[in-house]
Formats: sequence, C-alpha cells, structure tokens
Amino acid sequence: MAKSKLRVLPLGGLGEIGKNMTVVEYDGSIVVVDTGLRFPTAEQVGIDLVLPDFTYLRERADDIEGIVITHGHEDHLGALPWILRELGTDIPVYGGPLTMAMARSKLDEHRLKDTDLTDVRPGETLELGAFDIELIHLTHSIPDMMAVALTCDVGTMLITGDYKFDQTPVDGKPADVSRLAELGREGLLLLCGDSTNADRPGFSPSESVAGPNLEAVFGRCEGRIVVTCFASNIHRVQQVVDAAKVHGRRVVLVGRSMRKNINIGRMLGHIDVEDGTFVQPREARDFPDHKLVIVSTGSQGEPLSALRRMAHRDHPQVELHKGDTVVFAATSIPGNERAVNDTIDRLYHIGCDVITARDAPIHASGHGYQEEIKLMLNLTRPKYVMPFHGDYKRIHLHGQLAESVGVPAENVFKGENGLPLELDGDGAAFGSRERAGMIYVDGVDIGDPTDVALRDRRMLSADGIFVVVATISEQDGSSVADPEIIFRGVPYPEDAEGLLGDIRGAITQSLEKAAREEIREVDLLQQVLHDDLAKFVYDRLRRRPMVLPVVVEV
Amino acid sequence: MAKSKLRVLPLGGLGEIGKNMTVVEYDGSIVVVDTGLRFPTAEQVGIDLVLPDFTYLRERADDIEGIVITHGHEDHLGALPWILRELGTDIPVYGGPLTMAMARSKLDEHRLKDTDLTDVRPGETLELGAFDIELIHLTHSIPDMMAVALTCDVGTMLITGDYKFDQTPVDGKPADVSRLAELGREGLLLLCGDSTNADRPGFSPSESVAGPNLEAVFGRCEGRIVVTCFASNIHRVQQVVDAAKVHGRRVVLVGRSMRKNINIGRMLGHIDVEDGTFVQPREARDFPDHKLVIVSTGSQGEPLSALRRMAHRDHPQVELHKGDTVVFAATSIPGNERAVNDTIDRLYHIGCDVITARDAPIHASGHGYQEEIKLMLNLTRPKYVMPFHGDYKRIHLHGQLAESVGVPAENVFKGENGLPLELDGDGAAFGSRERAGMIYVDGVDIGDPTDVALRDRRMLSADGIFVVVATISEQDGSSVADPEIIFRGVPYPEDAEGLLGDIRGAITQSLEKAAREEIREVDLLQQVLHDDLAKFVYDRLRRRPMVLPVVVEV
Repeated sequence: MAKSKLRVLPLGGLGEIGKNMTVVEYDGSIVVVDTGLRFPTAEQVGIDLVLPDFTYLRERADDIEGIVITHGHEDHLGALPWILRELGTDIPVYGGPLTMAMARSKLDEHRLKDTDLTDVRPGETLELGAFDIELIHLTHSIPDMMAVALTCDVGTMLITGDYKFDQTPVDGKPADVSRLAELGREGLLLLCGDSTNADRPGFSPSESVAGPNLEAVFGRCEGRIVVTCFASNIHRVQQVVDAAKVHGRRVVLVGRSMRKNINIGRMLGHIDVEDGTFVQPREARDFPDHKLVIVSTGSQGEPLSALRRMAHRDHPQVELHKGDTVVFAATSIPGNERAVNDTIDRLYHIGCDVITARDAPIHASGHGYQEEIKLMLNLTRPKYVMPFHGDYKRIHLHGQLAESVGVPAENVFKGENGLPLELDGDGAAFGSRERAGMIYVDGVDIGDPTDVALRDRRMLSADGIFVVVATISEQDGSSVADPEIIFRGVPYPEDAEGLLGDIRGAITQSLEKAAREEIREVDLLQQVLHDDLAKFVYDRLRRRPMVLPVVVEV
Repeated sequence: MAKSKLRVLPLGGLGEIGKNMTVVEYDGSIVVVDTGLRFPTAEQVGIDLVLPDFTYLRERADDIEGIVITHGHEDHLGALPWILRELGTDIPVYGGPLTMAMARSKLDEHRLKDTDLTDVRPGETLELGAFDIELIHLTHSIPDMMAVALTCDVGTMLITGDYKFDQTPVDGKPADVSRLAELGREGLLLLCGDSTNADRPGFSPSESVAGPNLEAVFGRCEGRIVVTCFASNIHRVQQVVDAAKVHGRRVVLVGRSMRKNINIGRMLGHIDVEDGTFVQPREARDFPDHKLVIVSTGSQGEPLSALRRMAHRDHPQVELHKGDTVVFAATSIPGNERAVNDTIDRLYHIGCDVITARDAPIHASGHGYQEEIKLMLNLTRPKYVMPFHGDYKRIHLHGQLAESVGVPAENVFKGENGLPLELDGDGAAFGSRERAGMIYVDGVDIGDPTDVALRDRRMLSADGIFVVVATISEQDGSSVADPEIIFRGVPYPEDAEGLLGDIRGAITQSLEKAAREEIREVDLLQQVLHDDLAKFVYDRLRRRPMVLPVVVEV
C-alpha cells in the first residue's frame, strides 16, 4: 500500500442493490462509510441475512479510525452489530442523531454494550486519522440523511449515500446544495454517487406530493383504512397522521418496527403528533371503522409482517373484512413482487379494496432520478466519478449520465465490490482485487461463510434425501441386519414397497461386490454404496436426491 | 346433478394466473375447455410443473365428449398430455390448426400415440353430446386463438380464452366482432371472459406497433442484435424477421422451443420468411456482427434458456461481447422479475447494451385492457358474467367493469376454482364445492399430490438434516456401537467436534432413559430419540433441522 495513495474499496453495494459498505484508506488510516446488509434471495435457502464479507478489515481492525453511517436504513446500517462484535465494540461510530438512535436500538437488541456512538450534525467536522470528515445534509426517505466528504492530502472525495433533491421536503429542510456547490468550486477529486434510479428519466416527485393524495384517498374511504409503508419512512407516517386528522380518524400503529421507529422519531422531534392521536391496537375495537387509520408494516409482503398476517387472517389484533381499504404507500423492491402481489390478492379475496401507487401518487421514491444525478454532478464538478449503490446496469447508466454532463469517459470508473480505486496526484486507476463477497447470518452462527451448508440445502430442497444404514460385522464385513432405508422429500413413488425391496437388493449386491474386492474400510464402503445407490435411484426415479449411506460395524 | 342445469366448473385459472381449465356439463355430457398448466413458485421446491387437480374428471371420464383448446399457450394447453394419459387417449381434442399442431408436438414428446386431434376452423360447428360448439376467431399474442361458444337447452355461454381487440393484427385478421355482436343479439346467457389486464385502463396497443419500433431500435445498433421474446409469439418473430430484412441482417434462431414453434408456424403459413433469411447458429460466425440478428428464448430469465446461458457465458454457440445489443421484446410475467433483472444485469456486466419495453414500445400485451373488456361485454351483452383467467384482484376488477356497463351486481359471479356455477331457466347460483387444486409434476411421477414430500423439502431447505444412527442389542436393548451422527445443510458450527460429542452424550442419555422405562419397540425408541434430540439441537443451534433417528437392532 503506497503511503501516498488514497484507496476507495467498496465491500458492498456495487453490482447489487443493498449491503452498502466502503473502506476509504490513506496513509495507514481507515474510515468505513456505511455498514449495510441485504435480505436473502429465494435461492439462499434458510439464510436469515446477507452481510458484506469484511475479511479485509479483520487484519486491519487497528487502523480503523471510525465508521460513518449516512442514514438509518438497513442497507446502510444493518450490518453494524456483526461488524462491531467481530472487529471491536470500541471502534467509534458517527452519524446523524436519528441514525445513531436507530443504531443504538439495534446494538441493544444484540446486547452489545459499551459501544462508542457519536451524534454528528450537518456542517460539523471530524478529524479521523489522516482524514477530515464533514457530513452534508441531503434529502431522502428518512430524516437525517447525510453525505460524507472525506479530505486527505490527495484531495476531497464525496460519498453521497442515498439522496434526492426534494425541493419541498416534509420537514422543510432541503438538501444543502450550497455546500455541494462549494465543494465543486473548491475542486472535488472524486464523487461516489447513488445510482439507484439512474434508469428513470426526469426528476423524482417530492415526498410532499404524497400527503394531499393520501388525504384525497382517505376522503373516498368509508370503512377502516390500513396504510402500509416502510417503518423507517417517518415523513410518510407524518403525512398519514396529518391526513387522518383532516378526516377525524385516530391512528393505530401495528408492527414492532413501526412502533419502535415512530417512538424514536417522536423523541427526536422528527414527527409531530397531537396527544390522543394514537390509539393502542386493543383499544381500536372501541372506535367505529370510519374513525380509524391503521399504519402497518408489511409493504414488501414480508412473511411475518403485520399486514401479511392480516391478509392471511392470522393477526392477533386486527381482523380485516369487506369495506376495509388497504393503501400501499410504498412500491415493491425488486424481488418482492410476488410476495406483495400474493398479499394484495388475499386482501381482495377477503373483500378489501386495495389502493397502490399505481392507482394514486401516494408514494415518492427516496432516490433521485436522472436529472438529479446530473444536478449532483454539475454541482460538485468532480474530476473522477465512481458510481455507487447499483447493479451493473445502473452503474453503467450512471456512467453515461456523467459523460453526458462532460466528465471524460476515462475518468468514470465503473467498479465492482472488492476492486479498489487508487488515486494520487498523477491520476486514478483500479488497484488489485481484494477479498469481497457475502457472508451469511444463519441462526446463531454469525458471519461464517456456510456455502457448503447452503449447497447441501439446495440439493435437499430440490430432490430430498435417501438415508441408507447398512450394519456389518466387524469380523468379516458380512451384513448382520437388514439395511434400513429412509427417504424424506422424495416424491412418494406409487410402488414404494417394491422400490424399497429393490434398493435393499442393490445394497446387498453393492456390499457383496465390496466384499469380493476386499473393501473393508468404512469410508470406502460408504463411497461404494453411495455411488451404486445414487445411480440406481436415478435410473428408477429420474431424480437425484442426496444419498447418505451409513455403515455401522458391530 | 339435476338434468336441467348447466354447470360451469372452473378447475383452474380463477384466483391465480395460469393453469386454465373449465368443465362444462349438461344433461350428462361434459366438454372440457382448455387444459393449462402453471410453472412452480420458488416455494414449491423441486417441483417441475403444476397442473390443475382433475380428480373430478376421473370419475366422469366416460362422460367427456371432447376437450376444446382455445390456443396453444402452455397455460391453456400444457396439461393435455397428463390429462389424456390419465383419462384416456381416445378423448377427442379440438382446436385451431396451429393449436393442434402444437398439441401434437407436445403429445409426441410424451410418446402418446393414437390420440384423436381434430382441426377446427372459425365458424365451424361441432356437436358434442348435449352441446353445440362454435369456435370464434379472436386476436391474441399467438395466431389461431378462438373463443368457444357452447350452446345447450339452457342457452349459450361463451368462454373467451385470451384475447385483445387488435384492429391491426400482423396477419391482417382482426377479431370476429360481427359474430360476437350476433351472439349478443341472439341473447347470450353467460360470458366467461379473460381478466388478465382488468387492472389496466384504456386499450392495449396493437401488435403492429412493435414492428416499426423494432426497426427503429435495430437502426441504432452497430453490433450484433439479440432479440428475446416468447417462442410462441410467432407474429413478434415475423416482425423481427421483417426488421432484420430492412437492415440487411440475417436471422439466427436459438433455443429448441423457438426453432420448433417457428417451424410449425412456417409449415402452417403463419410466418412468411424468404429463403436464405435464417442462418444456422454454427454458420453465424461467418457473418460480421452488424449482419446478424439472433432470436432467442429466455425473455423470462428461465434457468436453462438460451439467453440466460449467454448471459452466464455458458452458451455453446453464442458468446456475447461488448457492442452487442440485447432487446427484450417481452415483459416479465409476475414472479419472474428477479430472474429477468439478474439476466439483464449480467448482460450489462459483459458490456452489452440492453433495451427493454420500458425503453421503447417493442412489446404489446396479448390481453385486452379495461376498454376492450367493456367492449366484449357490450358486444355480447351477457345476462350473467363470470370473470375468468385472473387472480382475485383481477376477477374483482373485471366484475366492477361488468357493473359499469350495466350488468346487475347480482348477475356477476366472482368464482373460485372448484366452485361450479349452475344455471337453468330460473337463474344462476353457485353450487356446492367440488375438488379442485393443484397437482405436481415431479420427476417421472406424474399427477400425484406430493404435499408431504414438498413439506419435507421445505423443512430440509430451511435448516438441513441431522441423521443419527443408534445400534442396540436385540437381546437387552443396550448400545453395541457408538452412535453415528451425520449432518447436511446445517451451518457448520465453530466447535463441531464438541457438538458431536455432546450429541452422542444426549443419545446415550436418551437410550438409557428409554431402557429404564422399558421402551424396546424400535418405532417408540426412534420417537423418543427424535424428541430428545430435536430439543437438544434447538437449544444449542437455535435452528430446527430435520432430525432423523435410525435405530438398528443386531
């Protein structure tokens, strides 16, 4: 590592949507920006969460001057407990007050004490090793979102985090474009910007658009109203509360994360609610349907969320019925479409009416569209551009946008996780690849790659398993009991008894063959049994269940 | 079954998208309209295909006068081989010439011979038992789509199949609105219409819109072009061929089903291609990139499709590279979004440009939008309406459309699979529920419900499996060998050896306890071991792998 190079190493968020995490390094000092997670795909069977592989940091833990979190969303904050547990709870963590409150609540759940969290306000400057750090207020779908400017001897770089240029944000605090422009005038070396909506032309609608539309939708509803949105979208909940007030409805918060986030938001003054507005779920029965709005988690069709349980008639407190209207004030994150559609269809089956962002503009994305990405580029006028937060498509499109506002193609670096960009006075280039990838959270075992377990599970889930137990004599290797055969997850064949008899025959043949060849070692015997049986089962069933032979010597 | 009632029993296609199948019954005669299938969801692990449960027909096979297929798509035709195999290959099957050619090709693949397929042309009338049947030409995304009018003593009903009112179809044959209007004037009893796009306002764009847009897109491409669309969308392929011709490009067909369908389409005159247009995949290397268009399967990101393999750099004949443009002339079917996005992102990673229907109007849906559904209702003026082909949401919306054109709410029947609508001179009402649901195709075993296997696989896929083998003496039940413990798909614990030792201890304790309680029956012993170990493993790992104890007596 040359002392004179600034290194920017993305460990997550490039070539994917989610688990954003970046290592910035200069002169032996490391600053980590964001520690996000991802939710597993359907192929990652039985996995609870996906974290960035932070092996690179394990060997460099002592050099970490601090972790800076741009905002409180899971894909920027969620991996923090695992990272602090592995690398040391004494690493200082910085971020806006709401972000730090959400981090604290998360660390508490993981029983991590004695952590070092510091609230930073926009405009404040931190000195972290070789870096001067400044947080710059931007707008997003959660309050307290801040871009991170990191300055070292080589120059200043800006990691935007997630942003949009909302000119009329609900809290009246637009992005600090003036400071962004100043960075541009001072000469920004590198911009690492959000690519999430690099495929959408124009400007994103303001969050304030949702409020009046929610109010109009509420006005058309006669029965109970259920609104579902992200629990962290505090401004959206504010707008729901305001619309409820206009129509004389009380508000019920349902879902643990919804109540938790709204509590934090109220405590920090991000949400303004009159006393008496909120009603406890069990008191809600005392109010007529047309006097209630239920705000619920589950906008993504998550299996255990409140709304999903309501749709499956399985929620302990809320029973939906004909006349209720369910309002989806969120869009599906790619990959969740099927779960969301399934939830919506069950709501229709119950007899509810359903209103989504397709029916009325009750949702505004938190990520800037193409014109906003260009505005960011034009404000900050970076020498180099490295698009962040996007799959390869969006990174590619962000690169095109940069070129369209005049950044030379050779100054646009379309990166990948694990590929460090190295910058010095002479220029910028990708360095040699570092370890990056995924680690899984799977039950209590934390942070260990469990690829083998995962591959096994995928095999088990495709075709099931045959377990075969052969008991042989320690003296001469002869069978001393009938082989036991158990199968699970294998489609029950029509003539199961016949098949089992045939498999017993195949085992006996296989053991006799092994005896003739004087194979006595248990491991080798098991291998022979495995190969013979796998072939036999495939020939008969045309499937490849896992075949697990157990040879017991007595 | 009252002799005087017309019964309409949907076995598939209601409350879901896919596996459309309807039983129509009068006076002891049964006509089946469509025999569709569905593709499994991610939760249906290891399942190959989903068919409608046609148990109801097993007992009534002798009463089936015929099966009528509206068109050749999998969700209307795909289950035919299984149904004929189970109910008798002598059941006559009727449909348009293309539909029957596709059915024949499918039955051949299943080695079903001596089947009885009859081509029916629009306007022809069939007499099937108590029914007069007429097929009426409509437009869709495959040629030869025909609605089915069934007339018995009670009156005439119409099953639309999938349709749109394309005023400028590629083959110049618009829907036979005149015959539909005539049915309306004669007095239609019941309309069972397509609900697929009941959530889209307005009119669907004509298929002919795609052609000029494809031509324009091709004009902007400098390198090779890969177009992906449904293999059955013969008119779309025609338009690709025409656009290729304009730009002096040859056409390569890639993917087995693409070649098969285009062959059938050419033989029946549905596609018009000059000799020398098509080039074999292995000859394609002799042409420069700008002289080629590859037409490929894989528009839905299907795992083994040609395009998916190209995107994973795993196709034997086509290697994509920077400069190639991949054109998605199809949209994602709900549920396939993730697979499609993954394919697109890999294409970007290779350096290809990707154009989807979001970027240019190169796709037109084959299903009519709201105004077309209303037009169908106004043309046929049915007394009763039973929306078909849709999840509960779309069926609900289709019902609203019917009411909006004046059908009284009490004459709209929002049905479910297995719920027969019964009609006679006095009126219409749902009868008592019949068996309906899904059956799975899973390896060679066909048509058997394998819910147990599926549940087992889901469990295996979530947490893996522990197999424990205890060998005991037949005489006194004492242990005669160390217990064997094997786990698969369980996240490898950090201290695996220690855990295994502890489990052995737990087994020994469990066996000793059983001995004290004089439990000697192997089944009971296995139950005790299972319960004790499942608890032990959960306490230690906080996961619930399947625990499979095997007790061997020697």
